[in-house]
Parts: sequence; structure tokens; C-alpha cells
Amino acid sequence: MANIVPVSFVGGTGGQWQVESITAITGDGLAPVEAVAIHDGHLAGVPAPAAWVLRGTNSHGRYVDRAQQTGLVAVQAPIGRRGSTCAALIPIRKSPAWWDLTQDERTAIFEGESRHISSSMKYLPAIARRLYQARDLAEPFDFLTWFDYAPEDAAAFDELVAMLRSTREWQFVDREVDVRLTRAS
Amino acid sequence: MANIVPVSFVGGTGGQWQVESITAITGDGLAPVEAVAIHDGHLAGVPAPAAWVLRGTNSHGRYVDRAQQTGLVAVQAPIGRRGSTCAALIPIRKSPAWWDLTQDERTAIFEGESRHISSSMKYLPAIARRLYQARDLAEPFDFLTWFDYAPEDAAAFDELVAMLRSTREWQFVDREVDVRLTRAS
Repeated sequence: MANIVPVSFVGGTGGQWQVESITAITGDGLAPVEAVAIHDGHLAGVPAPAAWVLRGTNSHGRYVDRAQQTGLVAVQAPIGRRGSTCAALIPIRKSPAWWDLTQDERTAIFEGESRHISSSMKYLPAIARRLYQARDLAEPFDFLTWFDYAPEDAAAFDELVAMLRSTREWQFVDREVDVRLTRAS
Repeated sequence: MANIVPVSFVGGTGGQWQVESITAITGDGLAPVEAVAIHDGHLAGVPAPAAWVLRGTNSHGRYVDRAQQTGLVAVQAPIGRRGSTCAALIPIRKSPAWWDLTQDERTAIFEGESRHISSSMKYLPAIARRLYQARDLAEPFDFLTWFDYAPEDAAAFDELVAMLRSTREWQFVDREVDVRLTRAS
């Protein structure tokens, strides 16, 4: 992942993605909006009349090893496929207890106990996923994950997020919002 | 490292730290300035009449394991000690080849081959160090490291940076600038 992709998700009245629901899973939610627009780069503020902006950067992986990476590359699909008219934007923040762990301890929970990547593999390539890092940006969330998929894979997506939320890793999530979106095909 | 510390290093005419030298070690340098000021948070632009701003965030470690962390905490000193009137600000960028490596491969080079932490331990606590992450901020550098020390430890600091620059890890550094600074005691 030699290149980075900085983006801003703008929640407001305009944008390609219509908001179906915004659900506060853990902690504070986000203000209701009609649509989400995705801008290249990190916007400096909230452009009127939007209600919120979430900034993040698609960057290098922090836990995946070479064997897992090879497995992922073989099966994963890119976001933005033509038939992927359903999406979810899931911002999460992890607790101080998570960030007090060292890299080896976080990795042991992430994959060793929670099997974050290996358990997710069965949902590929139906569900496409892109992770944006936000913690170093001093944002209110640590990560923003974008998922997109065809309407017929909506039940599989619900199963995937339920599986992730049941892991030990998710016990360290202290804020999570689930934004579901659709767009015209 | 449950808290993050976002900062902006402003190179211009004012600030607590007087610039002694700015040396381009690898790749493009930085414009000459008289002084560096350190601001809390990420400034949105370059405040006139400054020449440059470098933004970064002191955040959680990405390579250190629990045993190393315990060793570091036992011996390291905080930045900003009263007698630390010498400092160095060393921004570096790593190559696409580095960022194409997976976490296990980067860790193997960082500590396994290059012994970044273990070889640096002998310079503690004389040399204090704080790392700021900048890559996810879409900055021109990936990391900014601030070191400070007493004038009598300047030779030890030169030895430390020479040691780091001789490692295999440093073969992945494709831009590096070395800014040396002093302040009144």
C-alpha cells in the first residue's frame, strides 16, 4: 500500500449516497443527514450546509502479515463496483485500554483471538471493504470503514458485522455508528 | 499511549528554538529559517511569515512489543528537561517499497535486522525522543522525530543518528532532513 488515499465523508443534503439509516451502536451517534458525499483529500472544515465531516486516510495495513495479505489480494474486490448500490460507513473509536496495548498485544487480540481477517474472508468478494485510518488526524473516530455490496448481499453483510461485534476485539470499541446508504445503479 | 498529541512545527522567524543548521540528508531539504515554533494541534495552513509547517501526531507505537516497552519506560526521559538546550527535528519519508511491506516484514527489518530500539537504548536517558506520525495526515514526510539533550551529549547524539542511518531500515528512507536547534537555558 505504497500510496495513501485521504478522503472526507461529508454528511449533509447532497452527494451520491442517500442515507437509509444512522444507528448509534455504542456511544454518541451522528446527526441525521439526507446524504453522504465523498470528497478527495481532507477538508479543513464542515462545508455549509453539511452537518458533519469525517476524515480518514486509506493507508498501509497495521496487522495483516504477508500470508494473509496474499490471501486477501487473491479474493477481495475493489469498492465501487457497478452493482454495489448498497453501502455502509462504520466509524469506530477504540478505548484507551486498546491504545495502551503494545503492537504484539493488539495483534494477538485482532487476529489471534478475534480472527478479524480470517473470519471475514468468507464474505469476500461479495462484500468490498476499505479501511480509512483517522486516529493520527485527531478525529473523533479512530477508523472509518466503508463497505459496499449488491442488494442481494445485504443479509451476508449484516452477518459479517454481527460476527465482528461479537469478538473480543470489539470489547475495546467505545464508540461506533452504523450509517447505511444506497445509490442509484 | 492512550492519548494522542497533535503538533505543528512552524519554521519561520519566531519561536523558542533557534535554528543552527538545516541539512538535506536524502532528497529535498527544507527552506532555511531562523527559528522553529511548536504549536499544539494541526494548523490548517502556513501562518505568515513562516516558510513551512510540518504536522504530526504523537500516537501509539507500531513496532515495540511489551518487553521493549517496559524496558523503554524504565530508562527513557521526557522531552523538555530544563538542561536540554539542544534539539534536533528529523523529518523522514520512507519509500514505496517500505510501505508495500506487510507489518511482519516491516517489524523484522525495524527490530530484527536494524535493532532500532535495542541499539538506541544505550543513548537513554541522555537523549530524549518523541516520535510524531505524519503519513496518515497526507504530509510530505511520514515521521517527524524530535530529540533533545544537553550540550555535553551532542557527540552521543551524532553517534546515535549515524548508527540509525547505517541500518538496513534506513535504506528505505527516501527523504530526510536534519534540523539542529538550540534554545536559551
